[in-house]
Amino acid sequence: MTERLYLYDTTLRDGQQTQGVQFSTAEKLRIAEALDELGIDYIEGGWPGANPTDSAFFDEVPQTRAKMTAFGMTKRAGRSAENDDVLAAVMNAGTQSVCLVGKSHDFHVTRALGITLEENIESIRASVAHIVAQGREALFDAEHFFDGYKANPAYALESLNAALKAGARWVVLCDTNGGTLPAEISTIVSEVIAAGIPGDHLGIHTHNDTENAVAGSLAAIDAGARQIQGTLNGLGERCGNANLTALIPTLLLKARYAGRFEIGVSLDALEGLTRISRMLDEILNRVPQKQAAFVGASAFAHKAGLHASAILKDPSTYEHIEPAAVGNRRIIPMSNQAGQSNLRRRLADAGLSVEKGDPALARILERVKARETDGYSYDTAQASFELLAREELGLLPEFFEVKRYRVTVERRKNKYDKMVSLSEAVVVVKVDGHKKLSVSESMDELGCDRGPVNALARALAKDLGPYQAMIDDMRLVDFKVRITQGGTEAVTRVIIDSEDGKGRRWSTVGVSANIVDASFEALLDAVRWKLVRDQA
Amino acid sequence: MTERLYLYDTTLRDGQQTQGVQFSTAEKLRIAEALDELGIDYIEGGWPGANPTDSAFFDEVPQTRAKMTAFGMTKRAGRSAENDDVLAAVMNAGTQSVCLVGKSHDFHVTRALGITLEENIESIRASVAHIVAQGREALFDAEHFFDGYKANPAYALESLNAALKAGARWVVLCDTNGGTLPAEISTIVSEVIAAGIPGDHLGIHTHNDTENAVAGSLAAIDAGARQIQGTLNGLGERCGNANLTALIPTLLLKARYAGRFEIGVSLDALEGLTRISRMLDEILNRVPQKQAAFVGASAFAHKAGLHASAILKDPSTYEHIEPAAVGNRRIIPMSNQAGQSNLRRRLADAGLSVEKGDPALARILERVKARETDGYSYDTAQASFELLAREELGLLPEFFEVKRYRVTVERRKNKYDKMVSLSEAVVVVKVDGHKKLSVSESMDELGCDRGPVNALARALAKDLGPYQAMIDDMRLVDFKVRITQGGTEAVTRVIIDSEDGKGRRWSTVGVSANIVDASFEALLDAVRWKLVRDQA
Repeated sequence: MTERLYLYDTTLRDGQQTQGVQFSTAEKLRIAEALDELGIDYIEGGWPGANPTDSAFFDEVPQTRAKMTAFGMTKRAGRSAENDDVLAAVMNAGTQSVCLVGKSHDFHVTRALGITLEENIESIRASVAHIVAQGREALFDAEHFFDGYKANPAYALESLNAALKAGARWVVLCDTNGGTLPAEISTIVSEVIAAGIPGDHLGIHTHNDTENAVAGSLAAIDAGARQIQGTLNGLGERCGNANLTALIPTLLLKARYAGRFEIGVSLDALEGLTRISRMLDEILNRVPQKQAAFVGASAFAHKAGLHASAILKDPSTYEHIEPAAVGNRRIIPMSNQAGQSNLRRRLADAGLSVEKGDPALARILERVKARETDGYSYDTAQASFELLAREELGLLPEFFEVKRYRVTVERRKNKYDKMVSLSEAVVVVKVDGHKKLSVSESMDELGCDRGPVNALARALAKDLGPYQAMIDDMRLVDFKVRITQGGTEAVTRVIIDSEDGKGRRWSTVGVSANIVDASFEALLDAVRWKLVRDQA
Repeated sequence: MTERLYLYDTTLRDGQQTQGVQFSTAEKLRIAEALDELGIDYIEGGWPGANPTDSAFFDEVPQTRAKMTAFGMTKRAGRSAENDDVLAAVMNAGTQSVCLVGKSHDFHVTRALGITLEENIESIRASVAHIVAQGREALFDAEHFFDGYKANPAYALESLNAALKAGARWVVLCDTNGGTLPAEISTIVSEVIAAGIPGDHLGIHTHNDTENAVAGSLAAIDAGARQIQGTLNGLGERCGNANLTALIPTLLLKARYAGRFEIGVSLDALEGLTRISRMLDEILNRVPQKQAAFVGASAFAHKAGLHASAILKDPSTYEHIEPAAVGNRRIIPMSNQAGQSNLRRRLADAGLSVEKGDPALARILERVKARETDGYSYDTAQASFELLAREELGLLPEFFEVKRYRVTVERRKNKYDKMVSLSEAVVVVKVDGHKKLSVSESMDELGCDRGPVNALARALAKDLGPYQAMIDDMRLVDFKVRITQGGTEAVTRVIIDSEDGKGRRWSTVGVSANIVDASFEALLDAVRWKLVRDQA
């Protein structure tokens, strides 16, 4: 008989406490959708009332299979739960579940809140009772539980019991400061269960301050806790929360857990894990961590010569799981056989079928390698990769030639003595033997400057002669810039996402020390790919 | 009585198996020196004979307090240890210690090596005996130990016993594929010790494939192992090795270990940990991981409003250790969620003491919030935040005024019929009532185009009259770009990191639909901050 283990995601709330992270409402909706598809049980959407984008998210929140959860704090002392406006804002989000953080460490009650221990217990009790009375599911987040338990176990337990007696579905043990080691978590969770708190009402919420958040969560499960809180990619305050991207495959694929527990994520959904992890990085415009467990680009990269040759005989010699199980793939140095079969698969994805042993394969691999050394990246820029391969295969027509371009960026006072900026671009192309000069400026319909890349894109796509009709429905939808080498050697990589009238979306890459030139290269590839695909 | 625990660093060997990492000899020497200063017991320098830079490193290796260790593999079957040229190359490095990897998993002996189980045991015995006969200290790295023990415990133990009987100082249990969970490591290490292998001859070598490498090492110590192998910043094959940068402070600062064990690293040396971690990233030209445990820039960043206000009352409320103990520091970032106490704390960090209740506080918060809505982010751009606050507080002199600028980006054929790009910038400033025109181009000393932002930065910093001397030692060290709103409304956020001759580093932010203009704004802030801090 397998037991049910529940996953609680707090990417949208605690994950947003990551330094530099601030989701827009649209981004929150996209993440919530991905979490729901994955099979997470609870999605904590934010703290309504505390943050304008959190409130906006709950206004627009979609129907999910997962229990949508609003986060807040227990009512303040000296007023009733019904009359606490902070709590009211949380309740007004109308979610199925409500999770309230409260104190369980005596020192924090007296020191940070400045109230009596009894007043705090009453706040917990009354707040949970209020949630339950409204027909919602209540969760109590016991802040600083482990430190509190070490200092005053009786009081820490009293806080949990107050919540449970008032009807809380879950009490969650939070290692708020992240300093509790897995062995201590194991001991304390066991003691808490021995003291009468049922394990199937007990959650665990760890932080990664000693790099033990995942292990601390596993230790709590081993000791009997049945809800795990964490975030995608381990986002979160300070060093982050427990990383669900590492925990989920461990629970599903490792014999120790797979046989004992059932979770909401299926083996099928697990195959989407790498994609979801990368999508989050893309939203955050972060370089995905290559070394991330399970989902990192290097997670199944076998660099050591001894390992690579053994892997060819039998992948299980140096792999703890099958990479495809988490939607990831094996990487073996380009030079050997596996490199070529990877390449052929990728070419097939682009509709290019190339025979095994074709000498063009080696040439393509070599060029990709050389360009990656220069700062290019073809991980996402599939369209640019396809153009490079077509060139080596002799399958890329030269639609037009860019003879030169010039962009001017200016900032000065206008006639009203206000500082304004404006860009102007001239692009000269040769199409079908005809030279064409196009000029464009960066001002949009509202008179706002949209910058030099915009001016350049418009000038390039203004008159391509016989091809013009094919690119009229193209639209630049995203633009990402990364510095691939720091300091004085700085090289800029630009990735451009384009879209057309048919809803197709494709990515191209450009690299240069000159950011405008890198952008132009990516723009050019975007246009060429569209012409190739529409069979100009 | 405290027991001695030994630290074995393999940054220079297993760390070099990280995808994209290849140290030069000079870099290896610099890292070895830092490890030695830190107080590591063993430094594994590489595999002499297998890799040219490894051999060169051992030729130039300095005298260290740490035991310098060469890595290799047990002799091949069918020849004597004396006549194995691979082993000879390892011995010829002349190190005090020699660590040999060998098989302890029966499946790998027969499948990967294709020899009998007895031949493998004999290879281990003879190789270790050979090292000891030459007066060196021998270590045996038992590859795939945990998987091997699960499959055939008797044989796995036999491999360890063969090495110990031949005189090995240490036998090291390697979780080569990284898939063994901490609880299993705990059980197996206990069983190995119960079977007669002394814990003070037992080492642990874990990988991070389930994000549990640190926890696995701690579990092995708890079970009785007394040597830990790992790398700085967790470098290493696939997902990396056990991260010594997280393990060392845990061993020194957490009561569970600090009281029981003595390690070679002192509390004084620990204060250099953050610096060493950043130095390694600098050598690798990597952006340091902000969320890294203990040493990350965000490790003590308190973003949540509730946390920040409590931290002001007492740092122990939301910090598991004192940041200075590892050479790190506390950060209270500005954000949507920040309150006034958070703000006052951050102003104090910038040397600005503002009374509680000062109406400027509300004005500053409001401006930060409004600018964040426009796409600015002050989490990392502390210098731009300080300038904004100083402006509201009336503490920001107007050093100079930018009247206008113009940048031209051009790409065309040069006289050799080759496509080249070049940028030219003109900046007009008014300093002390004098108008100054400066012009600069984007070509560096080698004749390479470094792009429009570079040209603009140089023109801006070319002649600021009386302030020029103060900014001459400024240098742009990093440049990050993010599109904060997609589609046609695209707004670009640029973050620039600058450095000066004193080694100070500061971040500034600029936002505009025009990427050049956003960069210019950030550059301008960088210059102004430097002038403020140097009390121009």
